[in-house]
Amino acid sequence: MHHRDQGDISVAASVITVSTTRTEKTDVSGETIKNLLREAGIPVVHYAICPDRVIAIRSEIHRALSEANCIIITGGTGLTHDDCTIEAVAPLLDKKMDGFGELFRLKSYEEVGTAAILSRALGGTIDGRAVFCIPGSVKGAALAVSEIIIPEIRHILRHAGR
Amino acid sequence: MHHRDQGDISVAASVITVSTTRTEKTDVSGETIKNLLREAGIPVVHYAICPDRVIAIRSEIHRALSEANCIIITGGTGLTHDDCTIEAVAPLLDKKMDGFGELFRLKSYEEVGTAAILSRALGGTIDGRAVFCIPGSVKGAALAVSEIIIPEIRHILRHAGR
Amino acid sequence: MHHRDQGDISVAASVITVSTTRTEKTDVSGETIKNLLREAGIPVVHYAICPDRVIAIRSEIHRALSEANCIIITGGTGLTHDDCTIEAVAPLLDKKMDGFGELFRLKSYEEVGTAAILSRALGGTIDGRAVFCIPGSVKGAALAVSEIIIPEIRHILRHAGR
Amino acid sequence: MHHRDQGDISVAASVITVSTTRTEKTDVSGETIKNLLREAGIPVVHYAICPDRVIAIRSEIHRALSEANCIIITGGTGLTHDDCTIEAVAPLLDKKMDGFGELFRLKSYEEVGTAAILSRALGGTIDGRAVFCIPGSVKGAALAVSEIIIPEIRHILRHAGR
Amino acid sequence: MHHRDQGDISVAASVITVSTTRTEKTDVSGETIKNLLREAGIPVVHYAICPDRVIAIRSEIHRALSEANCIIITGGTGLTHDDCTIEAVAPLLDKKMDGFGELFRLKSYEEVGTAAILSRALGGTIDGRAVFCIPGSVKGAALAVSEIIIPEIRHILRHAGR
Amino acid sequence: MHHRDQGDISVAASVITVSTTRTEKTDVSGETIKNLLREAGIPVVHYAICPDRVIAIRSEIHRALSEANCIIITGGTGLTHDDCTIEAVAPLLDKKMDGFGELFRLKSYEEVGTAAILSRALGGTIDGRAVFCIPGSVKGAALAVSEIIIPEIRHILRHAGR
Repeated sequence: MHHRDQGDISVAASVITVSTTRTEKTDVSGETIKNLLREAGIPVVHYAICPDRVIAIRSEIHRALSEANCIIITGGTGLTHDDCTIEAVAPLLDKKMDGFGELFRLKSYEEVGTAAILSRALGGTIDGRAVFCIPGSVKGAALAVSEIIIPEIRHILRHAGR
Repeated sequence: MHHRDQGDISVAASVITVSTTRTEKTDVSGETIKNLLREAGIPVVHYAICPDRVIAIRSEIHRALSEANCIIITGGTGLTHDDCTIEAVAPLLDKKMDGFGELFRLKSYEEVGTAAILSRALGGTIDGRAVFCIPGSVKGAALAVSEIIIPEIRHILRHAGR
Repeated sequence: MHHRDQGDISVAASVITVSTTRTEKTDVSGETIKNLLREAGIPVVHYAICPDRVIAIRSEIHRALSEANCIIITGGTGLTHDDCTIEAVAPLLDKKMDGFGELFRLKSYEEVGTAAILSRALGGTIDGRAVFCIPGSVKGAALAVSEIIIPEIRHILRHAGR
Repeated sequence: MHHRDQGDISVAASVITVSTTRTEKTDVSGETIKNLLREAGIPVVHYAICPDRVIAIRSEIHRALSEANCIIITGGTGLTHDDCTIEAVAPLLDKKMDGFGELFRLKSYEEVGTAAILSRALGGTIDGRAVFCIPGSVKGAALAVSEIIIPEIRHILRHAGR
Repeated sequence: MHHRDQGDISVAASVITVSTTRTEKTDVSGETIKNLLREAGIPVVHYAICPDRVIAIRSEIHRALSEANCIIITGGTGLTHDDCTIEAVAPLLDKKMDGFGELFRLKSYEEVGTAAILSRALGGTIDGRAVFCIPGSVKGAALAVSEIIIPEIRHILRHAGR
Repeated sequence: MHHRDQGDISVAASVITVSTTRTEKTDVSGETIKNLLREAGIPVVHYAICPDRVIAIRSEIHRALSEANCIIITGGTGLTHDDCTIEAVAPLLDKKMDGFGELFRLKSYEEVGTAAILSRALGGTIDGRAVFCIPGSVKGAALAVSEIIIPEIRHILRHAGR
């Protein structure tokens, strides 16, 4: 699926929207992420909307892992009892990239000020694939994807890939 | 899929054999477990052989969880570097049943003596379904399934089921 | 409150019943535990019924810790989503006594057979005090208190006490 | 105690000073925090000085949780063996706000340079209430409270509150 | 150092006594363990008495790991604040053998009754070597070594060894 | 070895290079770090190259801890399966300094942009000594040592030292 050499890395993306209310039609964040990826030349090979339950999120990630090496999960990262994306994903990571969440919040801080502390975000690897959890707001998702994930995904996969 | 009431609980089983060498033809433990379950009136709705890699085991469990409420994983429970079934499953459990591993080893002890300390086994629940990791030997697997899992599965699901 | 010397240890017990439906009048397990302790010459200095929420259970334990050095929590040890006694208590323990849960299940096994694997129980220490989580059934609670906790509490406090 | 709606959120604060030497008279950090909160229109409904022991800190937090929905713990965040505030609080959090500690250190860095790496700070939620651990120095405490906690507490509670 | 084949496994043992008061002359438990091992044909290639501090215990284990493939640590397994052997060793283990502690307590139970719940013991592997933490009492140590470790060490190393 | 008073703290450094290919001659990062430390008046009392295996890294750290109070481990911090420095060190830390990794990445971000998210770094204390894991690149290692570790090491040891 992907290879590691001097040359280019092929990236295949998955977008998973965690939401109990959105449909494919109303999933503006998912649509925005897919468009940003495609414009950057990254094919989106898997897309799903899944409810905010740990078992559903983990199932969808495992489906995605068989096709994609860049998995982006948007939504369910807030502070309410129902928000469980971070909790679902963290125990699955082989390596955590602390810098992803930090840089995302640093950039959010420049945009929205101290409200950035409410942004939970997580990046890491599972078996050589990159996995990112980002907020469900269009603005937050677009920031993470366009300013961090797209610029660095080939770099990450070249360093993490099997 | 399953319900919780005064009456009976319907059990639907999954059998996952963790092995890099076995095929469906040579998977004697898997075959034995399936036969024991069917004789006990428990339908086997999912069966797979998967390699001893964390990502493969977790993917197969998540596939199984959509169909079955009693998931039995056999093999990969030893002490070598490659054995990773326990490590793959433990972080996924909502509740751990310490008593399952203990009782399995107590019964093994009665059969094989102190060698029972090499038997790693694990039981617990994920989202109201029961999950068990048991050794890959025919003898060990049969012991766990016939003497503990089959007698208690309805009881467990009645207490754990959503 | 308690001391550690050649002579006797003074034990002061707390009984916390985790339940959303019981009242002081209908809390038969709590009443049974208190009676067993008093018959064994152990004063019960704190008693409360608290709902099955992590924050409520932890608050009650911290109240108990200021008065008692033997804290017994009964109920909320099952496998449903609402059962959270074990989850509330485990992260608070300084030292875990694996043997308490094991011995309780061994004794349960002798009484109820393989159904013992459903019994979750936990023992350990917090700052030199002993803390036990036991099932909410009268039979299970009585077994744990009369056959393990009462015979060993002085021994435990002599070894753990500050 | 607090509610979640279109309108305003009522905030009720608790200030806990972790120190073995300070008294109410000499607790300048605690006094500073209380004044800052009151000036911002946030009533302080609970205040305590507690020794730097895990059990004491956790007990005080549980007392505070019954009255307040914004709990600020100052002191005990250093690197010595006795500093245990972070260790006492971290396992109690339902959700961790990584951004709180990061932003606090970012702001400290701008003030004190690389010495900011010695600042341990922690933010998160317990059952829908906000909990913050901040250093015991007047300067550090004032920075955290005036520049991060006060501006964002209503925002946090609106997103986290039950 | 050790090999894994059809034939025999060579075992090289280390005995580490955790104590702040014993000397080589008064270390009866250590002496007993060494004698039992030698009588069983297992050479003791490393022996040390080390104080009950986490850093000291871990340093000694790492020294032992370069020479021995069966490391037995005796003492420091109690419930006081100073007892830290279990806490020092548990995070170092690659695989935990739950059955070792369970079987040790089961055998203790047969000898000393319910007091067995005070016995903390731990077994597991580090990089293919076996590591055991057992109580510091002569009786407890002898029980663990003669009835469990010696009979099973070759079996364990054959299954765990690299 | 080191003391804590009004006056100066004596720092003794250890440099551990994690690499399977470098020799003392080709270990440019290690050489760079040692030179930077010596220029800053900090003696390097321990130096070793060790392979990227958890057991080897932990053994070397424990050797270093008996001589040094500032231990710098360079290399093995990437995202491949073989990179295990962070995984080897994290469980050994008594206190984690989150700010060290954050500040290192903040400074990297200013130099290399978003690629900083690939930099894993870790700082904390073991028994009052400071321990840092930093990347194996000369540039990254020099940044961490000259801009963070050297300016703050005395400050850290004064606050953490026994």
